[in-house]
Amino acid sequence: MIQTPYLLFLGDAPDQLAAKVAQGIKDWRPDNAVGQLRMEGCKADVGLADMTLAEAKSKGAKTLVIGVANRGGVISKAWKEVLLAALEMGYDIASGLHNLLEDEADLVEKAEERGCALHDVRIPSVAYPIASGVKRSGKRVLAVGTDCSVGKMYTALALDEAMRKRGMKSTFRATGQTGILITGEGVPLDAVVADFMAGAVEYLTPDNDADHWDVIEGQGSLFHVSYSGVTMALVHGGQPDALIVCHEPTRPHMRGLPDYAVPEMADIRDVALTLARVANPGCQVVGIAVNTQHLSDAEATAYLKKVEAEMGLPAVDPFRHGADRLAQALEAL
Amino acid sequence: MIQTPYLLFLGDAPDQLAAKVAQGIKDWRPDNAVGQLRMEGCKADVGLADMTLAEAKSKGAKTLVIGVANRGGVISKAWKEVLLAALEMGYDIASGLHNLLEDEADLVEKAEERGCALHDVRIPSVAYPIASGVKRSGKRVLAVGTDCSVGKMYTALALDEAMRKRGMKSTFRATGQTGILITGEGVPLDAVVADFMAGAVEYLTPDNDADHWDVIEGQGSLFHVSYSGVTMALVHGGQPDALIVCHEPTRPHMRGLPDYAVPEMADIRDVALTLARVANPGCQVVGIAVNTQHLSDAEATAYLKKVEAEMGLPAVDPFRHGADRLAQALEAL
Repeated sequence: MIQTPYLLFLGDAPDQLAAKVAQGIKDWRPDNAVGQLRMEGCKADVGLADMTLAEAKSKGAKTLVIGVANRGGVISKAWKEVLLAALEMGYDIASGLHNLLEDEADLVEKAEERGCALHDVRIPSVAYPIASGVKRSGKRVLAVGTDCSVGKMYTALALDEAMRKRGMKSTFRATGQTGILITGEGVPLDAVVADFMAGAVEYLTPDNDADHWDVIEGQGSLFHVSYSGVTMALVHGGQPDALIVCHEPTRPHMRGLPDYAVPEMADIRDVALTLARVANPGCQVVGIAVNTQHLSDAEATAYLKKVEAEMGLPAVDPFRHGADRLAQALEAL
Repeated sequence: MIQTPYLLFLGDAPDQLAAKVAQGIKDWRPDNAVGQLRMEGCKADVGLADMTLAEAKSKGAKTLVIGVANRGGVISKAWKEVLLAALEMGYDIASGLHNLLEDEADLVEKAEERGCALHDVRIPSVAYPIASGVKRSGKRVLAVGTDCSVGKMYTALALDEAMRKRGMKSTFRATGQTGILITGEGVPLDAVVADFMAGAVEYLTPDNDADHWDVIEGQGSLFHVSYSGVTMALVHGGQPDALIVCHEPTRPHMRGLPDYAVPEMADIRDVALTLARVANPGCQVVGIAVNTQHLSDAEATAYLKKVEAEMGLPAVDPFRHGADRLAQALEAL
């Protein structure tokens, strides 16, 4: 678990998109961050107060979170100076970079000297068990996609927020690096060893109050041949009571797979439900989340109406319209 | 790739079952082994000539294969003496033990000194790619089970043998430690990191002659919640042209999961075929392999006849009746 609150390190981000991890923290867990630290030439701004390490420290910041992608996969000399200074001041550091903090000898040495933690959220920090399949108390909802990167994390975060607003008990459960940095905990499922994937999901979503919902971030797609095994582990390890089908209607083909057509939502619904019911016979598909970012307002409204009629389920774009109708569907379950 | 031929180390096996890896090598790749090495008190015998390290060396043995499970997960002092002596004489060593050879400092030191290889087949030795999904030449058949440990490896090995006997081009592709030790190569799929599982299966079954078949060893089951993600990666990474459904009809419940009923063969057929056709739209289920070891001859015959009528597919026990009818079904495809 990563200690909050954070100071968000934006470094020398070349544009706003490069800081999407920091933006996600600001959007979804603003209370987790006291401010942002930008270096000279930084072109991103997530709308938090600019602070030095010392200023943020005085506001209580415990962890410097690298909220930006680095260029060329290398931690630059300029970044390194800031990171070493942070450790010197007693900050922990958390990172989802491909190149690991723990592979940087000077950071490791300084962290040991100062008793600080280095969190590389791309790699597991826990020895997960093999899944037992034992029925757990509490309820779980999982976002399943027709493809990768169709908005499953966004849907889960928006749903979690909408459920809390309705007074429901809900916890977003992160299964990828961005989600882990946003919430401070989770399982980097794509980096878990095969035999322990489903066990890692069970570990992430333990017994809970009967009326509590875990909102599990989905990964990949059962129809995406590169990552479907990861999705499968979520469907079985998560024991979901409810599924939300997530879709992006303008894809010419599956992400990264030019020869593969995006499946119909009904295909994902049917196969996901068949497999989910192995672990939880009562599982239901309760709604559809469509990422309509490439449609006009009128197109989006028409498309959602059509999907809703065809599938007989509430269909929303959580970004455009909020996720309250999905939360309502879960409440009604 | 493990160098052949082998000398099979049976150690102080307490019974025949403990030597099942050695037995598998003797049964399926007898040409891979020059003899067996048994220590005092060994209760197993796979029917090969007993040899000392020196005798086997003179017959050309290159690798000492640990063909026996060790007690308590510890490499004993008595075993260690044999292993060190083998390295001293220039043997490589191959092992599927949970406790790794590479974690034994004295073995590592001696292997380095003598320029010998230590093969721990439980862990991957290759940095597998992420699956590309690109269609490969050649044909592939995958064994899919209603449960774990229903005879998928045996079925694949028997099928490979039957296909060769018919003059077909066939290669058994191992995906677990026993299969890897039997054939000298393969992918320990349950130990691969999630993101690379399907890519590891693609790596294992590359482009080949148009009339060549890879016979892929199955793992787990799409309906076994602990390991279904591994199975999923085989279904998509393997791009199978054909599936064989494997079943054991006397199981009271899924292996290790007392609350989970074993699915119907038709359920596995339908969901496996739906998912396999994502990667290979022409995929067909061509036959059923039933492990009838707990049935009498009469019961087995009656059961297979019933299955054959219900499923409309050849149904055999490859151990009792051979796998030729399955090979025939593939040849007819």
